[in-house]
Amino acid sequence: MKVIADLCVVPIGVGVSLGSYIAACEKILMKAGLKIRLHGYGTNIEGEWDQVMQAIKDCHQQLHDMGAPRISSTVRLGTRIDREQTLEDKIRSVEEKL
Amino acid sequence: MKVIADLCVVPIGVGVSLGSYIAACEKILMKAGLKIRLHGYGTNIEGEWDQVMQAIKDCHQQLHDMGAPRISSTVRLGTRIDREQTLEDKIRSVEEKL
Amino acid sequence: MKVIADLCVVPIGVGVSLGSYIAACEKILMKAGLKIRLHGYGTNIEGEWDQVMQAIKDCHQQLHDMGAPRISSTVRLGTRIDREQTLEDKIRSVEEKL
Amino acid sequence: MKVIADLCVVPIGVGVSLGSYIAACEKILMKAGLKIRLHGYGTNIEGEWDQVMQAIKDCHQQLHDMGAPRISSTVRLGTRIDREQTLEDKIRSVEEKL
Repeated sequence: MKVIADLCVVPIGVGVSLGSYIAACEKILMKAGLKIRLHGYGTNIEGEWDQVMQAIKDCHQQLHDMGAPRISSTVRLGTRIDREQTLEDKIRSVEEKL
Repeated sequence: MKVIADLCVVPIGVGVSLGSYIAACEKILMKAGLKIRLHGYGTNIEGEWDQVMQAIKDCHQQLHDMGAPRISSTVRLGTRIDREQTLEDKIRSVEEKL
Repeated sequence: MKVIADLCVVPIGVGVSLGSYIAACEKILMKAGLKIRLHGYGTNIEGEWDQVMQAIKDCHQQLHDMGAPRISSTVRLGTRIDREQTLEDKIRSVEEKL
Repeated sequence: MKVIADLCVVPIGVGVSLGSYIAACEKILMKAGLKIRLHGYGTNIEGEWDQVMQAIKDCHQQLHDMGAPRISSTVRLGTRIDREQTLEDKIRSVEEKL
């Protein structure tokens, strides 16, 4: 099952500058071979469900290893069986109607 | 790794009455042996990360099997390594300060 | 326009114990005369759109006043025009199918 | 109070092709004079809290006017008082650490 996800990870208890933690997650997602797209409040992820979920787990584990005592993430998860759809397709389906 | 999650599943393309779909998810979460707590806009879930994630995947697959062509879920994922915390602990930590 | 919302506020930069901040939000929501229901990963809120949104803004402002330099909240917002529906109705529509 | 938000609107009861509804929201956000950035699972929005919230309400009202009987949105809301930060700043703070 393919999924298009959007992940926003918030490490808690490490101050207010979170950029290096988010960058560590980006590296994990990239190394996992997933298609990703960083934006201003999270990261789009496209891939097979199990690989995406494993990568999200690896992000939590990595951030705990980096010293974050607590993490609160939000994830949007989109699946569909009526047709194939990529991240680019989703954006194009909106932009062509603007 | 233990996780406290909050899941809200929205099947798309099956009309506006979603109760039977949400109930199907509840049954999957219960059968998975997870601690759950239905509320007015989702379900709290407490358990081991892999089991929780497998159950969320099973929910998507079940709803597609029930005819939902498309699903958009939102999930909050909380992990911490500083101490053990249950769903009840989280609620109590707020209520005792009210 | 009526809305059923679910709010999860995460103050950042104030350590890992967030209970007193969440309790401060609960008090604001209660004083606003909204119907609320605390759960293990957020709070259900039922009310008129403008009142709900004003209360959420007041929560952010109050937490900044309490010393939180940064806040990241997630909100689910449900509106419908086909029929009236309360928080209790939503829960009942699932539970009666379990 | 300035906010950086991320909005994902899901109209329910209008089938599976949501592009025209999302495009209608984009137009509302643009006309409101807000800085926006469409991505693959939502839209980043930067602006004054009240203007952003009014635009989100207008999106719900517009989609109901277009025939959507029910809508479920998810919104991330980020505010901070320690320093000014734009959408571009947030992305840069991650990318410079990759």
